[in-house]
Amino acid sequence: MYDLIIIGGGPGGVAAGVYAARKKIKTLLITESFGGQSIVSADVQNWIGTKSVSGFDLAKMLEDHVRAYEKKEGNDHGSVEIRSPALVSAVREIPHGFEIITDKGEKLETKTIILTNGSRRRKLGVPGEKEFEGKGVAYCSTCDAPLFSGKIVAVVGGGNAGLEAVVDLFPYAEKIYLLEYGEALKGDPVTQERVKNGPKPVEIILNAQTEAILGEKFVNGLRYKDRRAGELKEFVLDGVFVEIGATPNSDMVKDLVALNKYGEVVIDSKTGKTSKEGIWAAGDVSDDPFKQNNISAGDAVKAALSCYQYLLENRK
Amino acid sequence: MYDLIIIGGGPGGVAAGVYAARKKIKTLLITESFGGQSIVSADVQNWIGTKSVSGFDLAKMLEDHVRAYEKKEGNDHGSVEIRSPALVSAVREIPHGFEIITDKGEKLETKTIILTNGSRRRKLGVPGEKEFEGKGVAYCSTCDAPLFSGKIVAVVGGGNAGLEAVVDLFPYAEKIYLLEYGEALKGDPVTQERVKNGPKPVEIILNAQTEAILGEKFVNGLRYKDRRAGELKEFVLDGVFVEIGATPNSDMVKDLVALNKYGEVVIDSKTGKTSKEGIWAAGDVSDDPFKQNNISAGDAVKAALSCYQYLLENRK
Repeated sequence: MYDLIIIGGGPGGVAAGVYAARKKIKTLLITESFGGQSIVSADVQNWIGTKSVSGFDLAKMLEDHVRAYEKKEGNDHGSVEIRSPALVSAVREIPHGFEIITDKGEKLETKTIILTNGSRRRKLGVPGEKEFEGKGVAYCSTCDAPLFSGKIVAVVGGGNAGLEAVVDLFPYAEKIYLLEYGEALKGDPVTQERVKNGPKPVEIILNAQTEAILGEKFVNGLRYKDRRAGELKEFVLDGVFVEIGATPNSDMVKDLVALNKYGEVVIDSKTGKTSKEGIWAAGDVSDDPFKQNNISAGDAVKAALSCYQYLLENRK
Repeated sequence: MYDLIIIGGGPGGVAAGVYAARKKIKTLLITESFGGQSIVSADVQNWIGTKSVSGFDLAKMLEDHVRAYEKKEGNDHGSVEIRSPALVSAVREIPHGFEIITDKGEKLETKTIILTNGSRRRKLGVPGEKEFEGKGVAYCSTCDAPLFSGKIVAVVGGGNAGLEAVVDLFPYAEKIYLLEYGEALKGDPVTQERVKNGPKPVEIILNAQTEAILGEKFVNGLRYKDRRAGELKEFVLDGVFVEIGATPNSDMVKDLVALNKYGEVVIDSKTGKTSKEGIWAAGDVSDDPFKQNNISAGDAVKAALSCYQYLLENRK
């Protein structure tokens, strides 16, 4: 039986893994891959302490850090076992802990769990979106707005995330389009006002169904269907922010821990504790309002240290 | 008038500075120095994403990151002004914000404040302590316990911090002394039990007043006075953890924000908000129970993003 199983290999999972290893907790980390959602970013400029790094290289830095503590022959100070690529398909409660079942059918027992398995950005699923990810297609305005200085940018999504992306783009983009699928913007009125009273005019296109993101090496246009007129239209631009929400990867624990209305795991943000004793969460899977790499790492450190205290107190 | 003044230049201050600059908030960062308390560490192994870095180099990485956004001629995307070395001597409330007075007598006005000015580890103030800091004298067992694998180590301080340092050392140190000034250990009974029932015997020395930390290039001994017998005694060791507490640097805001019984600024750990509208806090000055570099950085990102929302909503 493990003392701790960490689910996820983004900044949160790696942070929990490094701290758990250094506390010599008997730990297994299960992840599909390392680095989290930033892996697709061309240039991460807000990983604190690092002026600029590609998402790919950041993922490698993170993986290298936790693998330095990997349990293997000839490494007697290491204590993290790593199973990657692997996915967790189910989590069940058992006496004195939990059973975790992987996509390969493995059954693993553990006293505690730290969930750091993030969320999935909702995608448009249109031609060009995947092809130009990191080449003009972006999913995080707080991270990537500064890359679009003096550019023409469209934000797809008229909910709060889309409206906030517009606000984030105000100091940078030269022209901003905001595309909403429905008949009206959906975000909070106060955020709508910010967009409408902003320092730059925003061209709001309602009833717009994005059909394709166009480009050659980089994005250079967007095609959408005017759902009322039934016409296809195109315009020229340099970037597209897809802001149609994210789905937290909390399905596997939905019967074990309290979730909020967005499906996020409710945590005490001082310790990472969930409503279920023995389960902690950190990062994008949690109900922390801001989703950023450094927040995931910091909150995962809290979770690992809180888990360590718990294991000491429940040693018998 | 500034939109935001950040007080402190450790991982928290730098994180807030980078995020504020990227949001183009009109920001001033005031700090005595960069890097925070880790600057004295010989080898930081738990700054996530970086396997090993000296405290000095980590401080430089942090300073470089925020200075990349420094407002100066020829850098038109920058928006953080930096005043360093400088200290804040007082904070006063004024209409629509706060006035900050520096040790140089400067008066600066701001709409909001993020406090990331940490705490001061209490020092023994004995010969050898300063000389051997980072050369056997350590102040953070979570960070530095792994450096003392197979070594003889003394922990000075019989409160919770000292007891937890002993627990952190169990997997690493070969022999552990615990020195307490008073007649009895002061930490929680449950933590005392952990120490007494640990996997290694701990030599507990009560009524011990540390007189000197001895060494040549590195620590090699400790001299203390047995306060009951009045005798000076010495023993041989490789490391000393000074765990006699820390004082949060919250004096300047003690009449403005709620503090807990330890003098730490009480925050909402989801946003960094203090009890006073317009003031946020993150890191060791706050009441977050765990004090680590990545926690300071993550919580300061939350504070900066929460402050950004506040400034947008109160723009008029």
